[in-house]
Amino acid sequence: MRVAYHEQMSDLATQLADMCRLAEESMERATEALLQADLSLAEQVITKNEQIEQLSVSCEEKAFALLALQAPVAGDLRQVISGIQIVADLDRMGALALHVAKITRRRHPNHALPEEVNGYFAEMGRVAVALGAAAREVLLTRDPERAARLQEEDDAMDDLHKHLFTVLMDRDWSHGVAAAVDVTLLGRFYERFADHAVQVARRVIFLATGRMPGQLPEHELLQED
Amino acid sequence: MRVAYHEQMSDLATQLADMCRLAEESMERATEALLQADLSLAEQVITKNEQIEQLSVSCEEKAFALLALQAPVAGDLRQVISGIQIVADLDRMGALALHVAKITRRRHPNHALPEEVNGYFAEMGRVAVALGAAAREVLLTRDPERAARLQEEDDAMDDLHKHLFTVLMDRDWSHGVAAAVDVTLLGRFYERFADHAVQVARRVIFLATGRMPGQLPEHELLQED
Repeated sequence: MRVAYHEQMSDLATQLADMCRLAEESMERATEALLQADLSLAEQVITKNEQIEQLSVSCEEKAFALLALQAPVAGDLRQVISGIQIVADLDRMGALALHVAKITRRRHPNHALPEEVNGYFAEMGRVAVALGAAAREVLLTRDPERAARLQEEDDAMDDLHKHLFTVLMDRDWSHGVAAAVDVTLLGRFYERFADHAVQVARRVIFLATGRMPGQLPEHELLQED
Repeated sequence: MRVAYHEQMSDLATQLADMCRLAEESMERATEALLQADLSLAEQVITKNEQIEQLSVSCEEKAFALLALQAPVAGDLRQVISGIQIVADLDRMGALALHVAKITRRRHPNHALPEEVNGYFAEMGRVAVALGAAAREVLLTRDPERAARLQEEDDAMDDLHKHLFTVLMDRDWSHGVAAAVDVTLLGRFYERFADHAVQVARRVIFLATGRMPGQLPEHELLQED
């Protein structure tokens, strides 16, 4: 029983890491599609999302079967519960990459982004994918120190997001309202993707330390308030 | 043991319903604050959010203690796991109401909304609060038929949101980019609030039927794609 149990636990951890990798890849491709107005790449992201959703259902079922059949206690119990919560975060990360791809598809053959903000999104995409990779590393290693560093790395995303809003709001924005709406939503999608990666890492801290994480202080848009 | 156990289960259900009521009230006040540019009402929502966050931590702890000490099985196990997932949705509903209040505070003494879209937000606020109340009813009654109806009621939110984007994108929007950015984000917050209320109901369906919910097909912005 114990052997089967540990196999199931490690199987669940591997599936969570797989799901995280798919979400990272989706965000990487979605960003490339966005920057290049590449419809076929956007379509790939949209199609691939099904795979993330299937993994999500499979992870939840696996976790539930573990609880029902093995009735784990203490640290093992924490691990399964965290797994169930982490599935929801990874699922959202996939959905946010999907949203980026859908905006790209909707605007094709035009670019959704005015050239002026391409640099911001190239960088936000890079940071988002790096945070996804870091969250995956944390899922596999359960290293609480690496998990804690993720939160700092997310500061780069917040800075980019703040600057993006400055460009939108404070300068002579000459690209019209429709582009501003797209840029606003896209900025939000990248920021939320990063927030969920940080949340995954926070849940691993809980796993490793047994302390309940407090609420994630969500990074406010335009932090001057 | 069983008596204590049932008390704990019912205590958890009551706390979830309380949390849902707080999220509804927050969204109701935040909408009023937004429409009236009422700073003190916005501040109330911002202060009250701490209470939602505390309840969220308390619900998670309660659910975890139940699992650890009582090792529930079958339907009871499902109920506790769903409870943990529902906490995350209710917590986001509170955070989304908080975002609405913060935009109101940031723009004060100005109105964040151009008068032209007030009607949309009055109605989106009404639908959001109604969906919150329906989700709470479902939490207390666990009535799967009522839960299923919620998804239909969410269609009203999607329609409002789509129309709002038409106003933003297609007509002569004369209110500038800054207002467009606020309206875009605010629209998204109301839509996500409604999505989470629907998700709470879906999780109760899982509770009542034992079938794993599939992924929530998130309502896409601008559904023409």
